[in-house]
Amino acid sequence: MSTLVAVDLAKCYRLLNHGPTVLVSSAHGDQSNVMAAAWAMPLDFSPPKVLVVVDKATHTRQLMEASGEFVLNVPCRAQAEQVLKAGSVSGKDVDKFAVSGLEAVAGDKVAAPHVAGCIAYLECRIISEPHNQQQYDLFIGEVVCARADPDVWHDGHWQFDGHDDKRSLHYIAGGSFFSIGEQFSVQVDKAEN
Amino acid sequence: MSTLVAVDLAKCYRLLNHGPTVLVSSAHGDQSNVMAAAWAMPLDFSPPKVLVVVDKATHTRQLMEASGEFVLNVPCRAQAEQVLKAGSVSGKDVDKFAVSGLEAVAGDKVAAPHVAGCIAYLECRIISEPHNQQQYDLFIGEVVCARADPDVWHDGHWQFDGHDDKRSLHYIAGGSFFSIGEQFSVQVDKAEN
Repeated sequence: MSTLVAVDLAKCYRLLNHGPTVLVSSAHGDQSNVMAAAWAMPLDFSPPKVLVVVDKATHTRQLMEASGEFVLNVPCRAQAEQVLKAGSVSGKDVDKFAVSGLEAVAGDKVAAPHVAGCIAYLECRIISEPHNQQQYDLFIGEVVCARADPDVWHDGHWQFDGHDDKRSLHYIAGGSFFSIGEQFSVQVDKAEN
Repeated sequence: MSTLVAVDLAKCYRLLNHGPTVLVSSAHGDQSNVMAAAWAMPLDFSPPKVLVVVDKATHTRQLMEASGEFVLNVPCRAQAEQVLKAGSVSGKDVDKFAVSGLEAVAGDKVAAPHVAGCIAYLECRIISEPHNQQQYDLFIGEVVCARADPDVWHDGHWQFDGHDDKRSLHYIAGGSFFSIGEQFSVQVDKAEN
Protein backbone atom coordinates (compact mmCIF):
# COMPACT_ATOMS: atom_id res chain seq x y z
CA MET A 1 0.00 0.00 0.00
CA SER A 2 1.37 3.41 -0.96
CA THR A 3 1.66 6.22 1.54
CA LEU A 4 -0.87 8.88 0.60
CA VAL A 5 0.47 12.35 -0.12
CA ALA A 6 -1.07 15.71 0.80
CA VAL A 7 -3.38 17.25 -1.82
CA ASP A 8 -3.46 21.06 -2.19
CA LEU A 9 -6.86 22.02 -0.77
CA ALA A 10 -7.41 24.37 -3.75
CA LYS A 11 -7.40 21.29 -6.00
CA CYS A 12 -9.05 18.72 -3.76
CA TYR A 13 -12.37 19.08 -5.65
CA ARG A 14 -10.63 17.18 -8.45
CA LEU A 15 -10.60 14.06 -6.26
CA LEU A 16 -14.40 13.94 -6.70
CA ASN A 17 -14.92 15.91 -9.91
CA HIS A 18 -15.31 12.81 -12.09
CA GLY A 19 -18.08 11.39 -9.92
CA PRO A 20 -16.67 8.38 -8.05
CA THR A 21 -18.64 6.40 -5.49
CA VAL A 22 -17.25 7.09 -2.01
CA LEU A 23 -17.02 5.53 1.42
CA VAL A 24 -18.16 7.78 4.26
CA SER A 25 -16.26 7.09 7.48
CA SER A 26 -17.25 8.56 10.83
CA ALA A 27 -16.67 8.17 14.57
CA HIS A 28 -18.00 9.36 17.91
CA GLY A 29 -16.81 8.26 21.33
CA ASP A 30 -15.76 4.63 21.02
CA GLN A 31 -17.87 3.95 17.94
CA SER A 32 -16.85 4.20 14.31
CA ASN A 33 -18.51 3.25 11.04
CA VAL A 34 -18.15 3.21 7.28
CA MET A 35 -20.86 3.29 4.60
CA ALA A 36 -20.91 3.42 0.80
CA ALA A 37 -22.43 6.48 -0.90
CA ALA A 38 -22.89 7.19 -4.60
CA TRP A 39 -24.37 10.63 -3.87
CA ALA A 40 -21.40 12.83 -3.01
CA MET A 41 -19.78 15.65 -4.97
CA PRO A 42 -17.85 18.92 -4.69
CA LEU A 43 -19.78 22.07 -3.77
CA ASP A 44 -17.14 24.82 -3.80
CA PHE A 45 -13.48 25.51 -4.53
CA SER A 46 -12.34 27.85 -1.75
CA PRO A 47 -12.73 27.09 1.00
CA PRO A 48 -13.34 23.63 -0.45
CA LYS A 49 -16.72 22.15 0.38
CA VAL A 50 -18.43 18.88 -0.47
CA LEU A 51 -21.97 17.50 -0.39
CA VAL A 52 -23.07 14.03 0.69
CA VAL A 53 -26.53 12.49 1.14
CA VAL A 54 -26.83 10.34 4.29
CA ASP A 55 -30.15 8.74 5.23
CA LYS A 56 -31.64 9.26 8.69
CA ALA A 57 -31.81 5.50 9.24
CA THR A 58 -28.04 5.01 9.10
CA HIS A 59 -25.60 4.62 11.96
CA THR A 60 -23.24 6.90 10.05
CA ARG A 61 -25.83 9.69 10.31
CA GLN A 62 -25.86 9.39 14.11
CA LEU A 63 -22.08 9.50 14.32
CA MET A 64 -21.85 12.45 11.91
CA GLU A 65 -24.42 14.50 13.80
CA ALA A 66 -22.83 13.69 17.18
CA SER A 67 -19.27 14.47 16.07
CA GLY A 68 -19.74 17.17 13.43
CA GLU A 69 -17.23 15.40 11.19
CA PHE A 70 -16.94 12.84 8.42
CA VAL A 71 -14.42 11.61 5.88
CA LEU A 72 -15.10 10.94 2.19
CA ASN A 73 -12.83 8.14 0.97
CA VAL A 74 -12.38 7.26 -2.72
CA PRO A 75 -12.25 3.46 -2.96
CA CYS A 76 -10.83 1.60 -5.94
CA ARG A 77 -11.53 -1.43 -8.05
CA ALA A 78 -9.52 -3.76 -5.81
CA GLN A 79 -11.95 -2.89 -2.99
CA ALA A 80 -15.26 -3.39 -4.85
CA GLU A 81 -16.35 -6.38 -2.77
CA GLN A 82 -15.67 -4.56 0.50
CA VAL A 83 -17.47 -1.46 -0.76
CA LEU A 84 -20.53 -3.53 -1.60
CA LYS A 85 -20.42 -5.14 1.86
CA ALA A 86 -20.16 -1.70 3.46
CA GLY A 87 -23.28 -0.76 1.53
CA SER A 88 -25.36 -3.83 2.38
CA VAL A 89 -25.29 -4.13 6.17
CA SER A 90 -26.04 -1.59 8.91
CA GLY A 91 -23.46 -0.38 11.40
CA LYS A 92 -26.23 -0.41 13.99
CA ASP A 93 -26.10 -4.20 13.96
CA VAL A 94 -22.47 -5.07 13.29
CA ASP A 95 -18.96 -3.63 13.24
CA LYS A 96 -18.92 -2.62 9.59
CA PHE A 97 -15.13 -2.35 9.46
CA ALA A 98 -14.83 -5.94 10.71
CA VAL A 99 -17.60 -7.31 8.48
CA SER A 100 -16.46 -5.57 5.31
CA GLY A 101 -12.76 -6.24 5.73
CA LEU A 102 -12.05 -2.52 5.49
CA GLU A 103 -9.46 -1.13 7.88
CA ALA A 104 -9.88 2.15 9.79
CA VAL A 105 -6.82 4.39 10.05
CA ALA A 106 -6.49 7.34 12.46
CA GLY A 107 -7.24 10.73 10.89
CA ASP A 108 -5.03 13.78 10.42
CA LYS A 109 -7.24 16.72 11.44
CA VAL A 110 -10.49 15.02 12.46
CA ALA A 111 -11.24 12.24 14.92
CA ALA A 112 -13.08 10.23 12.25
CA PRO A 113 -10.88 7.56 10.67
CA HIS A 114 -10.15 7.13 7.00
CA VAL A 115 -10.12 3.81 5.17
CA ALA A 116 -6.90 1.97 4.35
CA GLY A 117 -6.30 1.11 0.71
CA CYS A 118 -8.48 3.90 -0.67
CA ILE A 119 -6.87 6.07 -3.36
CA ALA A 120 -7.82 9.33 -1.65
CA TYR A 121 -9.65 10.78 1.32
CA LEU A 122 -11.09 14.18 2.24
CA GLU A 123 -11.48 15.00 5.94
CA CYS A 124 -14.50 17.24 6.49
CA ARG A 125 -16.12 19.32 9.22
CA ILE A 126 -19.89 19.67 8.90
CA ILE A 127 -21.24 23.15 8.13
CA SER A 128 -24.49 23.00 10.10
CA GLU A 129 -27.53 23.41 7.84
CA PRO A 130 -30.39 21.87 9.86
CA HIS A 131 -33.03 22.41 7.16
CA ASN A 132 -30.99 20.59 4.49
CA GLN A 133 -30.14 17.81 6.91
CA GLN A 134 -33.73 17.27 8.05
CA GLN A 135 -35.57 17.89 4.78
CA TYR A 136 -33.16 16.36 2.28
CA ASP A 137 -30.67 14.21 4.28
CA LEU A 138 -28.09 16.54 2.72
CA PHE A 139 -24.83 17.41 4.49
CA ILE A 140 -22.29 20.09 3.62
CA GLY A 141 -18.72 19.59 4.76
CA GLU A 142 -15.72 21.88 4.62
CA VAL A 143 -12.64 19.93 3.59
CA VAL A 144 -9.83 20.47 6.13
CA CYS A 145 -7.33 17.88 4.87
CA ALA A 146 -7.04 15.76 1.72
CA ARG A 147 -4.61 13.06 0.66
CA ALA A 148 -4.24 10.84 -2.41
CA ASP A 149 -2.26 7.83 -3.61
CA PRO A 150 0.81 8.98 -5.57
CA ASP A 151 0.56 5.86 -7.76
CA VAL A 152 -2.53 7.41 -9.41
CA TRP A 153 -2.46 11.11 -8.42
CA HIS A 154 0.19 13.26 -10.11
CA ASP A 155 0.49 17.05 -10.27
CA GLY A 156 -3.08 17.59 -9.14
CA HIS A 157 -4.71 15.07 -11.53
CA TRP A 158 -5.80 11.45 -11.50
CA GLN A 159 -3.80 9.24 -13.87
CA PHE A 160 -4.87 5.61 -13.72
CA ASP A 161 -2.92 4.20 -16.68
CA GLY A 162 -1.02 1.09 -15.59
CA HIS A 163 -2.98 0.84 -12.34
CA ASP A 164 -6.26 -0.81 -13.27
CA ASP A 165 -6.76 -2.14 -9.73
CA LYS A 166 -6.69 1.43 -8.46
CA ARG A 167 -9.30 2.84 -10.86
CA SER A 168 -12.17 4.60 -9.12
CA LEU A 169 -15.56 2.88 -8.73
CA HIS A 170 -18.86 4.27 -10.05
CA TYR A 171 -21.83 2.38 -8.64
CA ILE A 172 -24.70 1.32 -10.88
CA ALA A 173 -27.11 -0.83 -8.80
CA GLY A 174 -27.52 -4.43 -7.68
CA GLY A 175 -23.83 -5.10 -7.04
CA SER A 176 -22.68 -3.72 -10.41
CA PHE A 177 -20.08 -1.02 -10.84
CA PHE A 178 -18.28 0.78 -13.60
CA SER A 179 -14.57 1.39 -13.18
CA ILE A 180 -13.42 4.69 -14.60
CA GLY A 181 -12.16 4.34 -18.15
CA GLU A 182 -9.89 5.95 -20.67
CA GLN A 183 -8.56 9.47 -20.25
CA PHE A 184 -8.51 11.77 -23.28
CA SER A 185 -8.23 15.47 -24.07
CA VAL A 186 -9.99 17.76 -26.50
CA GLN A 187 -9.11 21.30 -27.47
CA VAL A 188 -11.23 24.28 -28.39
CA ASP A 189 -10.22 27.65 -29.74
CA LYS A 190 -9.35 30.13 -27.04
CA ALA A 191 -12.41 32.17 -26.10
CA GLU A 192 -13.69 34.34 -23.31
CA ASN A 193 -14.53 32.44 -20.16
CA MET B 1 -29.47 9.41 -33.72
CA SER B 2 -31.71 7.07 -31.71
CA THR B 3 -35.08 8.13 -30.43
CA LEU B 4 -34.87 8.39 -26.67
CA VAL B 5 -37.25 6.25 -24.63
CA ALA B 6 -39.08 7.12 -21.43
CA VAL B 7 -37.29 6.23 -18.18
CA ASP B 8 -39.36 5.14 -15.18
CA LEU B 9 -39.08 8.09 -12.77
CA ALA B 10 -38.47 5.66 -9.89
CA LYS B 11 -35.23 4.63 -11.61
CA CYS B 12 -34.14 7.93 -13.16
CA TYR B 13 -31.56 8.46 -10.38
CA ARG B 14 -29.57 5.72 -12.13
CA LEU B 15 -28.99 8.04 -15.08
CA LEU B 16 -26.70 10.08 -12.78
CA ASN B 17 -25.72 7.54 -10.13
CA HIS B 18 -22.29 6.82 -11.66
CA GLY B 19 -21.31 10.49 -11.64
CA PRO B 20 -21.31 11.72 -15.25
CA THR B 21 -20.61 15.31 -16.24
CA VAL B 22 -23.84 16.92 -17.49
CA LEU B 23 -25.05 19.73 -19.71
CA VAL B 24 -27.56 22.07 -18.07
CA SER B 25 -30.03 23.49 -20.59
CA SER B 26 -32.44 26.29 -19.79
CA ALA B 27 -34.74 28.84 -21.40
CA HIS B 28 -36.80 31.92 -20.60
CA GLY B 29 -38.78 34.02 -23.04
CA ASP B 30 -36.89 33.94 -26.33
CA GLN B 31 -33.54 33.07 -24.76
CA SER B 32 -32.04 29.64 -24.22
CA ASN B 33 -28.65 28.41 -23.08
CA VAL B 34 -26.55 25.37 -22.32
CA MET B 35 -23.61 24.99 -19.92
CA ALA B 36 -21.40 22.13 -18.79
CA ALA B 37 -21.48 21.09 -15.12
CA ALA B 38 -19.47 18.43 -13.34
CA TRP B 39 -21.28 19.11 -10.05
CA ALA B 40 -24.66 17.43 -10.40
CA MET B 41 -26.05 14.32 -8.71
CA PRO B 42 -29.20 12.60 -7.48
CA LEU B 43 -30.71 13.77 -4.18
CA ASP B 44 -33.73 11.51 -3.69
CA PHE B 45 -35.59 8.55 -5.17
CA SER B 46 -39.28 9.42 -4.85
CA PRO B 47 -40.27 11.90 -5.91
CA PRO B 48 -36.96 11.97 -7.76
CA LYS B 49 -34.81 14.99 -7.05
CA VAL B 50 -31.42 16.15 -8.27
CA LEU B 51 -28.81 18.70 -7.23
CA VAL B 52 -26.76 20.98 -9.45
CA VAL B 53 -24.33 23.80 -8.66
CA VAL B 54 -24.73 26.84 -10.95
CA ASP B 55 -22.61 29.94 -10.42
CA LYS B 56 -24.25 33.38 -10.04
CA ALA B 57 -22.16 34.75 -12.92
CA THR B 58 -23.71 32.42 -15.51
CA HIS B 59 -26.43 33.18 -18.03
CA THR B 60 -27.89 29.76 -17.21
CA ARG B 61 -28.43 30.92 -13.64
CA GLN B 62 -30.53 33.89 -14.84
CA LEU B 63 -32.64 31.68 -17.08
CA MET B 64 -33.14 29.06 -14.35
CA GLU B 65 -34.23 31.61 -11.77
CA ALA B 66 -36.55 33.35 -14.23
CA SER B 67 -38.19 30.15 -15.49
CA GLY B 68 -38.04 27.84 -12.46
CA GLU B 69 -36.88 25.00 -14.71
CA PHE B 70 -33.79 23.31 -16.09
CA VAL B 71 -32.80 20.12 -17.85
CA LEU B 72 -29.83 17.90 -16.99
CA ASN B 73 -28.53 16.21 -20.13
CA VAL B 74 -26.00 13.36 -20.09
CA PRO B 75 -23.57 13.95 -22.98
CA CYS B 76 -21.36 11.24 -24.45
CA ARG B 77 -17.87 10.77 -25.75
CA ALA B 78 -18.80 11.74 -29.30
CA GLN B 79 -19.79 15.17 -27.93
CA ALA B 80 -16.68 15.92 -25.84
CA GLU B 81 -15.53 18.83 -27.97
CA GLN B 82 -18.96 20.47 -27.89
CA VAL B 83 -19.19 19.92 -24.12
CA LEU B 84 -15.86 21.65 -23.63
CA LYS B 85 -16.99 24.55 -25.81
CA ALA B 86 -20.20 24.82 -23.80
CA GLY B 87 -18.03 25.08 -20.70
CA SER B 88 -15.59 27.69 -21.98
CA VAL B 89 -17.71 30.58 -23.27
CA SER B 90 -20.53 32.54 -21.63
CA GLY B 91 -24.08 32.56 -22.94
CA LYS B 92 -24.22 36.22 -21.99
CA ASP B 93 -21.93 36.98 -24.92
CA VAL B 94 -22.83 34.43 -27.58
CA ASP B 95 -25.49 31.92 -28.58
CA LYS B 96 -23.95 28.89 -26.89
CA PHE B 97 -25.97 26.42 -28.92
CA ALA B 98 -24.66 27.98 -32.15
CA VAL B 99 -21.07 28.31 -30.92
CA SER B 100 -20.81 24.83 -29.43
CA GLY B 101 -22.56 23.02 -32.27
CA LEU B 102 -25.06 21.55 -29.81
CA GLU B 103 -28.67 21.44 -30.97
CA ALA B 104 -31.62 22.41 -28.75
CA VAL B 105 -34.73 20.22 -28.95
CA ALA B 106 -38.14 21.15 -27.57
CA GLY B 107 -38.92 19.67 -24.16
CA ASP B 108 -41.64 17.26 -23.05
CA LYS B 109 -42.94 18.73 -19.78
CA VAL B 110 -40.86 21.89 -19.40
CA ALA B 111 -40.24 24.84 -21.69
CA ALA B 112 -36.45 24.41 -21.39
CA PRO B 113 -34.97 22.47 -24.30
CA HIS B 114 -32.87 19.35 -24.08
CA VAL B 115 -29.74 18.69 -26.13
CA ALA B 116 -29.77 16.51 -29.25
CA GLY B 117 -27.38 13.57 -29.28
CA CYS B 118 -27.15 13.26 -25.50
CA ILE B 119 -27.69 9.74 -24.13
CA ALA B 120 -30.23 10.89 -21.54
CA TYR B 121 -31.98 13.92 -20.14
CA LEU B 122 -33.89 14.74 -16.96
CA GLU B 123 -36.42 17.59 -17.08
CA CYS B 124 -36.59 19.36 -13.73
CA ARG B 125 -38.68 21.94 -11.90
CA ILE B 126 -36.78 23.94 -9.29
CA ILE B 127 -37.78 23.43 -5.67
CA SER B 128 -37.22 26.93 -4.34
CA GLU B 129 -34.57 27.03 -1.61
CA PRO B 130 -33.36 30.64 -1.59
CA HIS B 131 -30.74 30.10 1.13
CA ASN B 132 -29.05 27.25 -0.77
CA GLN B 133 -29.23 29.17 -4.03
CA GLN B 134 -27.73 32.37 -2.58
CA GLN B 135 -25.24 30.90 -0.13
CA TYR B 136 -24.01 27.88 -2.08
CA ASP B 137 -25.16 28.33 -5.72
CA LEU B 138 -26.97 25.04 -5.10
CA PHE B 139 -30.23 24.18 -6.88
CA ILE B 140 -32.65 21.35 -6.14
CA GLY B 141 -34.85 20.11 -8.97
CA GLU B 142 -37.71 17.65 -8.99
CA VAL B 143 -37.47 15.41 -12.04
CA VAL B 144 -40.75 15.47 -13.98
CA CYS B 145 -39.68 13.58 -17.11
CA ALA B 146 -36.64 11.48 -18.05
CA ARG B 147 -35.57 9.80 -21.27
CA ALA B 148 -32.55 7.76 -22.35
CA ASP B 149 -30.98 6.32 -25.49
CA PRO B 150 -32.07 2.68 -25.95
CA ASP B 151 -28.70 1.88 -27.56
CA VAL B 152 -27.10 2.20 -24.11
CA TRP B 153 -30.03 2.07 -21.61
CA HIS B 154 -31.68 -1.33 -21.15
CA ASP B 155 -34.06 -2.49 -18.43
CA GLY B 156 -33.26 0.46 -16.18
CA HIS B 157 -29.45 0.20 -16.47
CA TRP B 158 -26.66 1.71 -18.55
CA GLN B 159 -24.91 -0.81 -20.80
CA PHE B 160 -22.21 0.80 -22.94
CA ASP B 161 -20.57 -2.32 -24.38
CA GLY B 162 -20.27 -1.97 -28.15
CA HIS B 163 -21.07 1.76 -28.03
CA ASP B 164 -17.81 3.45 -27.06
CA ASP B 165 -18.86 6.72 -28.69
CA LYS B 166 -21.86 6.83 -26.38
CA ARG B 167 -19.96 6.30 -23.12
CA SER B 168 -20.63 8.99 -20.53
CA LEU B 169 -18.07 11.76 -19.89
CA HIS B 170 -16.46 12.49 -16.52
CA TYR B 171 -14.62 15.80 -16.53
CA ILE B 172 -11.16 16.13 -15.01
CA ALA B 173 -9.84 19.66 -15.74
CA GLY B 174 -8.10 21.58 -18.50
CA GLY B 175 -9.94 19.93 -21.39
CA SER B 176 -9.37 16.37 -20.15
CA PHE B 177 -12.10 13.83 -19.55
CA PHE B 178 -12.47 10.23 -18.57
CA SER B 179 -14.98 8.14 -20.45
CA ILE B 180 -16.76 5.61 -18.26
CA GLY B 181 -15.05 2.23 -18.33
CA GLU B 182 -15.67 -1.44 -17.81
CA GLN B 183 -18.78 -2.74 -16.07
CA PHE B 184 -18.40 -5.56 -13.56
CA SER B 185 -20.36 -7.17 -10.73
CA VAL B 186 -19.41 -8.43 -7.30
CA GLN B 187 -21.44 -10.50 -4.90
CA VAL B 188 -21.62 -10.57 -1.14
CA ASP B 189 -23.35 -12.98 1.21
CA LYS B 190 -26.94 -12.03 1.85
CA ALA B 191 -27.18 -9.94 4.96
CA GLU B 192 -29.56 -7.54 6.69
CA ASN B 193 -29.88 -4.23 4.92
